[in-house]
Amino acid sequence: MLIKIAIKPQILAPLMYNNYFSWPFSLVIKQQNYILQFETNLMYNCCLTCGASKTLPFLELILRQRTFDVLIIQAQAFSIKQKVLQLVLYNLHTKKEKVTKKVVEEKKEAEKQEDDEYVCEDEETSIRLKTPRGTRDYNPHEQGLRNEMMAIIKRNFDNSGGQYLETPVIELRDILMNKYGEDEKLIYELQLQDGAEELCLRYDLTVPLSRYVAMNRKKIKSPFKAARMGRVYRRDQPRMTKGRLREFWQCDYDIVRTAMPSHMRDLVFDDMEVIALICQTLMDLGVEDFVIKLNNRKILDVICGVKNEQVRAISSAIDKLDKREWNQVKEEMIEKGITAECAETIYAFVQIKGKPHEVLEQLKKNKDLQAYNKIPGIVSAAIEEFELLMELLQAYHGNIYLDKVCIDMSMVRGLDYYTGIILEAVFTDPRLAEDIGSISAGGRYDKLIQGFVPSQEFPCVGASIGFERIFSYLLEKHPGRSSTSTDILVCEVSGKNESVKDILYIERLKLLEELKLRNGFSCEIMNKFKPSFRDQINYAEDREIKWLVIIGEEELANNTVNLRRLTLVGDRVIIKSKDKKTNGQKGVIIAVEQPEDNDKAFFFYIKPDDPALQKISQSKDKPNGWKLTKKEIGQVIEQNKEETISELQITGLKRSELIAFLKARLPNSLTQ
Amino acid sequence: MLIKIAIKPQILAPLMYNNYFSWPFSLVIKQQNYILQFETNLMYNCCLTCGASKTLPFLELILRQRTFDVLIIQAQAFSIKQKVLQLVLYNLHTKKEKVTKKVVEEKKEAEKQEDDEYVCEDEETSIRLKTPRGTRDYNPHEQGLRNEMMAIIKRNFDNSGGQYLETPVIELRDILMNKYGEDEKLIYELQLQDGAEELCLRYDLTVPLSRYVAMNRKKIKSPFKAARMGRVYRRDQPRMTKGRLREFWQCDYDIVRTAMPSHMRDLVFDDMEVIALICQTLMDLGVEDFVIKLNNRKILDVICGVKNEQVRAISSAIDKLDKREWNQVKEEMIEKGITAECAETIYAFVQIKGKPHEVLEQLKKNKDLQAYNKIPGIVSAAIEEFELLMELLQAYHGNIYLDKVCIDMSMVRGLDYYTGIILEAVFTDPRLAEDIGSISAGGRYDKLIQGFVPSQEFPCVGASIGFERIFSYLLEKHPGRSSTSTDILVCEVSGKNESVKDILYIERLKLLEELKLRNGFSCEIMNKFKPSFRDQINYAEDREIKWLVIIGEEELANNTVNLRRLTLVGDRVIIKSKDKKTNGQKGVIIAVEQPEDNDKAFFFYIKPDDPALQKISQSKDKPNGWKLTKKEIGQVIEQNKEETISELQITGLKRSELIAFLKARLPNSLTQ
Repeated sequence: MLIKIAIKPQILAPLMYNNYFSWPFSLVIKQQNYILQFETNLMYNCCLTCGASKTLPFLELILRQRTFDVLIIQAQAFSIKQKVLQLVLYNLHTKKEKVTKKVVEEKKEAEKQEDDEYVCEDEETSIRLKTPRGTRDYNPHEQGLRNEMMAIIKRNFDNSGGQYLETPVIELRDILMNKYGEDEKLIYELQLQDGAEELCLRYDLTVPLSRYVAMNRKKIKSPFKAARMGRVYRRDQPRMTKGRLREFWQCDYDIVRTAMPSHMRDLVFDDMEVIALICQTLMDLGVEDFVIKLNNRKILDVICGVKNEQVRAISSAIDKLDKREWNQVKEEMIEKGITAECAETIYAFVQIKGKPHEVLEQLKKNKDLQAYNKIPGIVSAAIEEFELLMELLQAYHGNIYLDKVCIDMSMVRGLDYYTGIILEAVFTDPRLAEDIGSISAGGRYDKLIQGFVPSQEFPCVGASIGFERIFSYLLEKHPGRSSTSTDILVCEVSGKNESVKDILYIERLKLLEELKLRNGFSCEIMNKFKPSFRDQINYAEDREIKWLVIIGEEELANNTVNLRRLTLVGDRVIIKSKDKKTNGQKGVIIAVEQPEDNDKAFFFYIKPDDPALQKISQSKDKPNGWKLTKKEIGQVIEQNKEETISELQITGLKRSELIAFLKARLPNSLTQ
Repeated sequence: MLIKIAIKPQILAPLMYNNYFSWPFSLVIKQQNYILQFETNLMYNCCLTCGASKTLPFLELILRQRTFDVLIIQAQAFSIKQKVLQLVLYNLHTKKEKVTKKVVEEKKEAEKQEDDEYVCEDEETSIRLKTPRGTRDYNPHEQGLRNEMMAIIKRNFDNSGGQYLETPVIELRDILMNKYGEDEKLIYELQLQDGAEELCLRYDLTVPLSRYVAMNRKKIKSPFKAARMGRVYRRDQPRMTKGRLREFWQCDYDIVRTAMPSHMRDLVFDDMEVIALICQTLMDLGVEDFVIKLNNRKILDVICGVKNEQVRAISSAIDKLDKREWNQVKEEMIEKGITAECAETIYAFVQIKGKPHEVLEQLKKNKDLQAYNKIPGIVSAAIEEFELLMELLQAYHGNIYLDKVCIDMSMVRGLDYYTGIILEAVFTDPRLAEDIGSISAGGRYDKLIQGFVPSQEFPCVGASIGFERIFSYLLEKHPGRSSTSTDILVCEVSGKNESVKDILYIERLKLLEELKLRNGFSCEIMNKFKPSFRDQINYAEDREIKWLVIIGEEELANNTVNLRRLTLVGDRVIIKSKDKKTNGQKGVIIAVEQPEDNDKAFFFYIKPDDPALQKISQSKDKPNGWKLTKKEIGQVIEQNKEETISELQITGLKRSELIAFLKARLPNSLTQ
């Protein structure tokens, strides 16, 4: 169901100016009236906006009691505290009541489904336990991967002279407003609890950087290569499984100058550095097949004299070209106030995409572009910038980065503040590209900080790594990650001598001190008095601890230890099976299944190295790999080494030789 | 000015139950009436709470227009949306109007002072630029230190088998309520923007962990050693310079079990592990002189039959014993509903503090404690737990951790949820202890998760590292930190040959590729075409880049490079001065002052190694060190090496020898 709201131009204007609207809408002009139209499942939001949360039940009540074609709702604007908004609601259906009810229920159902994964509902809990909509927890396996990703990104930022900056997650409302165009409606606001300040959760890391630079502009050494990693918040429609959340991490790198350089081409140097950094970081993260799409706002701004305010509307139309006929999209553009002639030009223009050098040749020859270039020189300057950028990428790292970039005139980023080059990295695989969307995005924004300090120029360029999206991709690609970094568990085996048994925990503590505190190994003991050996094996297996150092009565008497190396998740193994297809193949253990009966043998799920052999799991609960028994695991390949080992058991190793033995096989923090 | 509000018991009860109150208050029972009393500078909060932000001006208006002794304010409860609150406000002063006005102004003044450091106010900015009250930015120098601290804490958590967990910063309101006692009023709430969920910013990392455990209790392997690092929010009175903020980082490590162990003493193993981890982490962070105070809630709970609800009130009274006479404190306790006899017992009891073994002997002999031990065995069980804890600490690491702990019966933590051992780390230096407060805190909370899942037991113990407080301490202790990790700047020197000059940026890019991309050095170039050598020296000095690799026409022709090692902030140097006091001393460069005139020599501020020689700077703007000229810097001592070098200049190094030369002197990520 499509809801349309007619609104008088004189009322619309100040509302537009104040960024009042908080629902996605399209604007149609018909017979001197403006029609706002939006999908009905957003009516809920709309109602909320018009008069706080009480409005929905109130509206429902009216819809049920009366039959009418036009409903005028008068309500005080929620956040602006000024004016009264008159909305004329055309109901397009005759059976209003049922439809309204159905819509609300459908919405609730959709929300519930969306949240399902992160809700715990059973009869045992005292309240419904869940994370807020669009947010989620990351368990230790997931967080392990996230920490690794952070380390890789940090190393790349470090190596590019990044200077770390941390700004609060909360910002004054005034700082964030009028920066994001219509996305402003997605900003979370805090309750006015102490009356002093109107506060919001930050929407990105770019506006807080701008505020910081404006405040510290006299101290900053230009160019300031600002590196930030932190959470941002957007009250958007979440798609959790695709890394689209309401709370998510961004990792940003921006080059900020506090004055225009004497030669404008120095700025292209900055553009190049950002693109090279994004390329290298994505490659280091293990994203192999991606492309960085480039465009330049200057070119888009001048064709057809399209104004900045229309860029978002046009870009949403352009985005639809993949799925709809040109005629439909053209109609939409015309409805949005673009002339038919201009729409055709845009259409021809957005077809231009491909290898940078080819695209630049095409652009130079493009007669439409030249004809519509109303501000002389802007387009040719943008083309020259592109040419210099490609030259710098080539000079820096040959074809390695250059092969990753393309120019795509249909890539138009939504945010208001871009003024020059814009970039967006996507997977080359079209299925991944559609599923996951952009994995990095950014551009040049030379006017943003000037909004805070009108008397000074701050040319800036930067990009953000799409942390959550890359995480969701890598998590699927690399399952079977250990949740701890513990390498060794010190175990005891009880003998018959009760007095020895009683003091074995002290011996474990002493060995823990030697291994962990004195030699820097990542080492644990089980926090239990007189644990059984089975207890300790389970403890190690649960936490994927591969090495056991074992002491008992005999070992204490002889001053020795026993050692055992478990075969666990994350181990690369060679398969020894009767099945000819699997025998001799190499793969990684991605899961271990403990049978219900504690005494029975474990099953191991193996993901083979050869992608051709990988099967697609039918069940969501079952790991996607070969299910094998312990016997079918032939040999373990030690990490980073090509030597193979069978499951290792050593008895009677001298205590004095233990440290040297472990140092040869395991990392320890003291010698690193 | 003290404001008192009389409130009828039947009205107070539901308000207490709903945790309605949002200001610090004390409760006095007088003649069947309850009197809430609070300091006037908090009236602002009180008024806000009673009826949204409009109430303050409204109240002011009434106070100015009328004279009265009792003011009844009727207002709808802001956050509970139920009931009507009747407050009877007794004004203790006759000149209400002036006092009220003054109070509001004083409050504004105090707030302004508090914020001053983090506000940028000048005529050039379009709006007032600041971070929200109680929050701040961290510049690259500061963030560098913070990143190092995070790495140290992470290494400690890793080495103790910590499993990382990340939960959202926002939580459902229902999850957070009724967990923190009267501190609940400090929780930030979000606006109900989409009507669906009432959201708050998390107050700590413990309650979110509890929710996570309750939701995932069937999957978690017990014991779960949960490590978390993240931001939390408290609408408390900020003291920015002492690391007391409204937004701050916490680093938590907790051991969570999903069932009671068969032997309760296994839990003491967990307690010991947490204490050992806190000790080691504080030591690794460079906090040398600290003590970990221990107490046990069980002991406090049984003496005098003090109820949990009174613990906070008593603890605030106990805290005042440092500054006030016992008689005054006793009176306060009696006002809070404690009997005089009980107050005396508490007083005698909180005198007990010192070395664990001595305190335990004292406790065993304490007749009052035995007499008042109304629940038999609880106190002696707590004493046994302490004894086992000390035995385990001793067995693990001899006296090293044991010497850091003491038992202090006057240490009572405020949070409601503790049930057993509680701990608090403070500096040994009394000035630091008072200034900075606790630098780590935690305890055992066996009932918290049961609040979510009543049918199951979850014994937990954990502690939080006071990240911001330690940061503020370390920042003062170790000034002069580089803001980037860049080691090398590749520079060009222009010759007279214009055609060579034109392509030198390409040569810089090629060298950058070789050093950074192929050999993993942290390396930069200046993003400028044809920069002057002075430009590049300034760039390096601004960013504390110590090594310059220089190419020019001659070097290109000969296939060589020149090298220069700058003397910069962070370098340890030997002073060569005519002043006998300073000559021959070693110290660290903490700041470099560039003179107004670009051509004049720099000044270096040196912090001498010998603390006796350190002077206290008179001015806030000037670094606290010796101001010396370049000539007075004798030799630089290379980091981690005891060899000394004079400022190094090498000309004509063969390109083929460059990598080996740098590898011998600098870290590079590829060989690490």
